[in-house]
Amino acid sequence: MLRHVRKLKVAVVGAGYWGPNLARNFAASPDWDLVAICDRDDERARALADRTGAAVEHSVDELLDRRQIDAIAIATPARTHADIAMAALSAGKHVLVEKPLADTVEAGRRMVRAAQQRGLILMADHTYCYTPAVVKIKELIENGELGDVLYVDSVRINLGLVQPDVDVFWDLAPHDLSILDFVLPDGLAPDGVTAQGADPLGSGRSCVGYLGLTLPAGALAHVHVNWLSPTKIRQLVIGGSRRTLLWDDLNPQQRVSVFDRGVDLQRQADMLGDSSRRKAAQISYRLGDTWAPALPEYEPLGRMVAEFAASIREQRPARTDGGAALRVLAVLEAAQRSLTQGSRCQSVTRPEPSLEVVG
Amino acid sequence: MLRHVRKLKVAVVGAGYWGPNLARNFAASPDWDLVAICDRDDERARALADRTGAAVEHSVDELLDRRQIDAIAIATPARTHADIAMAALSAGKHVLVEKPLADTVEAGRRMVRAAQQRGLILMADHTYCYTPAVVKIKELIENGELGDVLYVDSVRINLGLVQPDVDVFWDLAPHDLSILDFVLPDGLAPDGVTAQGADPLGSGRSCVGYLGLTLPAGALAHVHVNWLSPTKIRQLVIGGSRRTLLWDDLNPQQRVSVFDRGVDLQRQADMLGDSSRRKAAQISYRLGDTWAPALPEYEPLGRMVAEFAASIREQRPARTDGGAALRVLAVLEAAQRSLTQGSRCQSVTRPEPSLEVVG
Amino acid sequence: MLRHVRKLKVAVVGAGYWGPNLARNFAASPDWDLVAICDRDDERARALADRTGAAVEHSVDELLDRRQIDAIAIATPARTHADIAMAALSAGKHVLVEKPLADTVEAGRRMVRAAQQRGLILMADHTYCYTPAVVKIKELIENGELGDVLYVDSVRINLGLVQPDVDVFWDLAPHDLSILDFVLPDGLAPDGVTAQGADPLGSGRSCVGYLGLTLPAGALAHVHVNWLSPTKIRQLVIGGSRRTLLWDDLNPQQRVSVFDRGVDLQRQADMLGDSSRRKAAQISYRLGDTWAPALPEYEPLGRMVAEFAASIREQRPARTDGGAALRVLAVLEAAQRSLTQGSRCQSVTRPEPSLEVVG
Amino acid sequence: MLRHVRKLKVAVVGAGYWGPNLARNFAASPDWDLVAICDRDDERARALADRTGAAVEHSVDELLDRRQIDAIAIATPARTHADIAMAALSAGKHVLVEKPLADTVEAGRRMVRAAQQRGLILMADHTYCYTPAVVKIKELIENGELGDVLYVDSVRINLGLVQPDVDVFWDLAPHDLSILDFVLPDGLAPDGVTAQGADPLGSGRSCVGYLGLTLPAGALAHVHVNWLSPTKIRQLVIGGSRRTLLWDDLNPQQRVSVFDRGVDLQRQADMLGDSSRRKAAQISYRLGDTWAPALPEYEPLGRMVAEFAASIREQRPARTDGGAALRVLAVLEAAQRSLTQGSRCQSVTRPEPSLEVVG
Repeated sequence: MLRHVRKLKVAVVGAGYWGPNLARNFAASPDWDLVAICDRDDERARALADRTGAAVEHSVDELLDRRQIDAIAIATPARTHADIAMAALSAGKHVLVEKPLADTVEAGRRMVRAAQQRGLILMADHTYCYTPAVVKIKELIENGELGDVLYVDSVRINLGLVQPDVDVFWDLAPHDLSILDFVLPDGLAPDGVTAQGADPLGSGRSCVGYLGLTLPAGALAHVHVNWLSPTKIRQLVIGGSRRTLLWDDLNPQQRVSVFDRGVDLQRQADMLGDSSRRKAAQISYRLGDTWAPALPEYEPLGRMVAEFAASIREQRPARTDGGAALRVLAVLEAAQRSLTQGSRCQSVTRPEPSLEVVG
Repeated sequence: MLRHVRKLKVAVVGAGYWGPNLARNFAASPDWDLVAICDRDDERARALADRTGAAVEHSVDELLDRRQIDAIAIATPARTHADIAMAALSAGKHVLVEKPLADTVEAGRRMVRAAQQRGLILMADHTYCYTPAVVKIKELIENGELGDVLYVDSVRINLGLVQPDVDVFWDLAPHDLSILDFVLPDGLAPDGVTAQGADPLGSGRSCVGYLGLTLPAGALAHVHVNWLSPTKIRQLVIGGSRRTLLWDDLNPQQRVSVFDRGVDLQRQADMLGDSSRRKAAQISYRLGDTWAPALPEYEPLGRMVAEFAASIREQRPARTDGGAALRVLAVLEAAQRSLTQGSRCQSVTRPEPSLEVVG
Repeated sequence: MLRHVRKLKVAVVGAGYWGPNLARNFAASPDWDLVAICDRDDERARALADRTGAAVEHSVDELLDRRQIDAIAIATPARTHADIAMAALSAGKHVLVEKPLADTVEAGRRMVRAAQQRGLILMADHTYCYTPAVVKIKELIENGELGDVLYVDSVRINLGLVQPDVDVFWDLAPHDLSILDFVLPDGLAPDGVTAQGADPLGSGRSCVGYLGLTLPAGALAHVHVNWLSPTKIRQLVIGGSRRTLLWDDLNPQQRVSVFDRGVDLQRQADMLGDSSRRKAAQISYRLGDTWAPALPEYEPLGRMVAEFAASIREQRPARTDGGAALRVLAVLEAAQRSLTQGSRCQSVTRPEPSLEVVG
Repeated sequence: MLRHVRKLKVAVVGAGYWGPNLARNFAASPDWDLVAICDRDDERARALADRTGAAVEHSVDELLDRRQIDAIAIATPARTHADIAMAALSAGKHVLVEKPLADTVEAGRRMVRAAQQRGLILMADHTYCYTPAVVKIKELIENGELGDVLYVDSVRINLGLVQPDVDVFWDLAPHDLSILDFVLPDGLAPDGVTAQGADPLGSGRSCVGYLGLTLPAGALAHVHVNWLSPTKIRQLVIGGSRRTLLWDDLNPQQRVSVFDRGVDLQRQADMLGDSSRRKAAQISYRLGDTWAPALPEYEPLGRMVAEFAASIREQRPARTDGGAALRVLAVLEAAQRSLTQGSRCQSVTRPEPSLEVVG
């Protein structure tokens, strides 16, 4: 990367849980100049600004008025994302938004449209798409190492913070959904979504959630998210026609394993219409080697802020652009509908993916 | 146990995968005299008979005609259970049936009714209900150690044999469902059942399956069964209002763990109608000790055949009686319906549990 | 294998802990005809004979007098091995002996000599050398996959039975030592042996033991054996100049892992005499992939009795012949000496390995 | 803690690997005012000073001349500790030293004596003694939960940096030894020490090391340290007469487990002189519950710098004072001697523990 390029100026809005991580990475980036921290809670903003050498702003309006910036990064509650983003886009700023992009597809769509109309970058901080493991998984799928994707099972459970505003689907599933959008050959494009949730504590929102996505060609993706689990599990299995992959994010010694193990079904022309007994005879099992690729070590958020800068400079959509974020929102909304309809399978409206083209 | 009691005579029908386990345990039991092995495949029957000191019969009719027996144990394909059981009950024999009891609720109901009318024992071989771990789990729930059951998550995945006749739900989920029936305070009595399955290999039946059960009082039980997983997992989490339990059946050093860890929600009268922010403030987290009870070691099938004998002698329903088996079948059938209706939640007809009273 | 070859006749001496395993495998073998079980405890002998279709003998003398046998298998306490084996060899029988071969090198040497003089097979039941994992490890080392062996660390700890006659070294370390003898390019030929033991319960013998072996070329092998550990561990690490191998015998899903990971030291001529700082600069780290080879599944004891038969028929030393067993005894004796001399390193007398040549 | 107490002023000497951790914790501490960073490498010092708001000094002499400080913290190579510490003590400063305290017992003794004579605090940064796990282990031993300590086995292996100046014993074993000194009822007071090391890479120093300590009353402590292991293990087992404890530092979900499991030996007066067979009959096994205490979460280094301040203010020895550090050095030196004498057991001179009394 050429160092003589001017650094881009960015402000971080929201100094709560996630904002400090963004601020730290912008501050450490060769691409970025962290100009300001903006938070209604002045003390919180001040503390973060002190640690990162940035100025403090109390409101987004003041921020946009007073600071010469290229971009803002939004790390506020999801229901406030759209308003802040729209203000920033109107002011001609590029926008990075913490996941989920917005709290409705409709709001997200407005954001995407506004960015598109002004030729600005709108990017979601789908952090996992910048981890060494997920990048490797995408590569393995692209190279055909797994064959066709047959099923996906993702478990993300923990004794987590019960959020005041969102349920466990909106809090945790964006991780799984954005990963699927990134690694699946066709992105996140389920034919249908079913959801089941439980609120056994009476907290007013689902704390335990299950999400089923019917993918094209009969494949099924399933996601289990849970705030109440005493054990922490973060595992993703991708079953392929050639090999099966396990990503165990809590096993630093072997995060990604590829199993040359599986069930094969020989389907031959002359077998059609045959009895199940003979069909069974055509099933065979592979019990081959296991292989765990070495993964490079780097901080995903560092890569993420670099991608934000690169997409601005190169005037191209970011890896996790608004379109990707909309596809995640569309699934979350379909899940919400399924929850209220006895887990009935819901179709997913294509959230106009063609929109995300930077002029 | 009094040794002078006459041994009961039993024959095992079916010498395939499971029959040999039953035969071995009957042969080793002080309660039972294994009289005969019956299988259409004479060679298979002969081999098993030789190992267990039993005679051989080619058909159930011949068996019932020629042998003085008190009971038969059926370990044939599920679709044949009902006919064999009905013949044996008609002949006045007590009957033990490998899970699932039958391939439809209707067939199971006929079996239960026939046994009831003749005052005979009909028992399902729900083997897991005789394991040290499950017996301990039931005890912990009964003693209130877990508090109210808030959610259940069961995973039973493996590179398993794709069965020629049944899908993964009928093959594996009876384990999970019979365990739930045994340990839950009210047995297996879900308000609704949703199911999602995938057959990514085109084998003609689901190889990957997810089952959601809405339990009374807002609790949710979820079961993941899978024949295609490269890794083997058998884990059951039972989240309670006081503590949470994890049964990891593949960790012989710590099968059952009880976590004094969880989320508490203080619901106070004056909080009603309050803002979510104040509600959130009432959530607290316990991060207490973990405790793994020592488990005795014994062979579950030995306990199971002993229970069969005891229920016959004491003229009382067995631990895993026909009623328990019917409740499992009712859920499997509801799941089947849900599969064909886009995962829509299905209600479960109470399968006449009052029937199972031995005259 | 040619089935028309006459089956060899064998008797098992000792029906305690290990004898039944040998008897079961001889009985199931196409190579062997299990003729008799011999044990002073008639009831124990009878029970085993009944299960395996063999006759019963009360003493070795009667056995050798009355039975037409080709070979005996000895599974009695170690201190009795030599007498029984010498009697059998004198009677012209081939001999298989449970580990350890004898309770002294001297006794073992007599056995080896007697077998050699009469052209009979003397073989030790070093069972682990017939497991899929150990066979694979030997193959990997032979093929140069690991490079030169730099260090070996073996841990075999458990809550085990405190033996009445032998300490933890003689009980457990023969496993580790026989494995090393089998897989190391030069066999078990340490330059020196140090041992440290503890008897914290005052049982009269070491219950916790550590064994250090200095191997040729500066390599070190270390063995930890322990009867008192609450956790069960069976792990062997073999560090090589190219790759490092981990055998975790209690992880059925990934028993053998090969790590392309390690420390490299560039030693260049012009570096000699250089400062440690520059030396350090020449150290580099490889963080490559991990690979877990698929292992076949078979019963090691089945392979072991097949090897016994093959070595008799082919008149060649068995894989785990008397010479291998003597090398194990020589290390155990050196360890015993080290224990009584403040862990001082002891040299190991070569136990005449050239002896074991079948005429 | 009273906030009106004057903050103590400290400088950190050494801005390499460990210094930044110390600096960060001093900077964040309410007890300390981090005044300066001192390193020969000005750039390194500057970078650390910038991050922590401290000034920069190029040499210790300049530091002591120009800065008003109460204490210094030394994080330089071990061979330089003594000179820097002596200079600081002469200048009347309290001293904290990264482990190991010095590179010889003799040097350490001089430091302890100098501190004592001037009534200054000399403290070793034995970080592990401030971790929640080790504090809990000490508490469990003190409360008698484990009974008498029968054996200790510690494994600390990793693919670690081969150090240019010290071998693996001096690099890693101070962790294990300082933990033992802290948790054992009588501190680290072995009767003898044996060591075995290997340098399979020809790096000029041991990269694989085993250390055996004979503790009073027949107990044995063993330490395995290794820079070349492809897998990372940090496990400590403490076998007690009542229970056994396992600390698995890499299992965040269950770091400390207490097993009510073990071997009991009934030693009765009338048993003395009895045969081993009857002795064996008196051995019994407990297979009780496992218990994993919840551990608080805090940063150990924060506690450590707080203890440094408290010991200065209260004019009392620190938890990990010079005496503790000397006991660690004495074992390391005995190990060095054992290495050069064929692993022969070496006695450990008591390193004048009575010295460490603050006037």
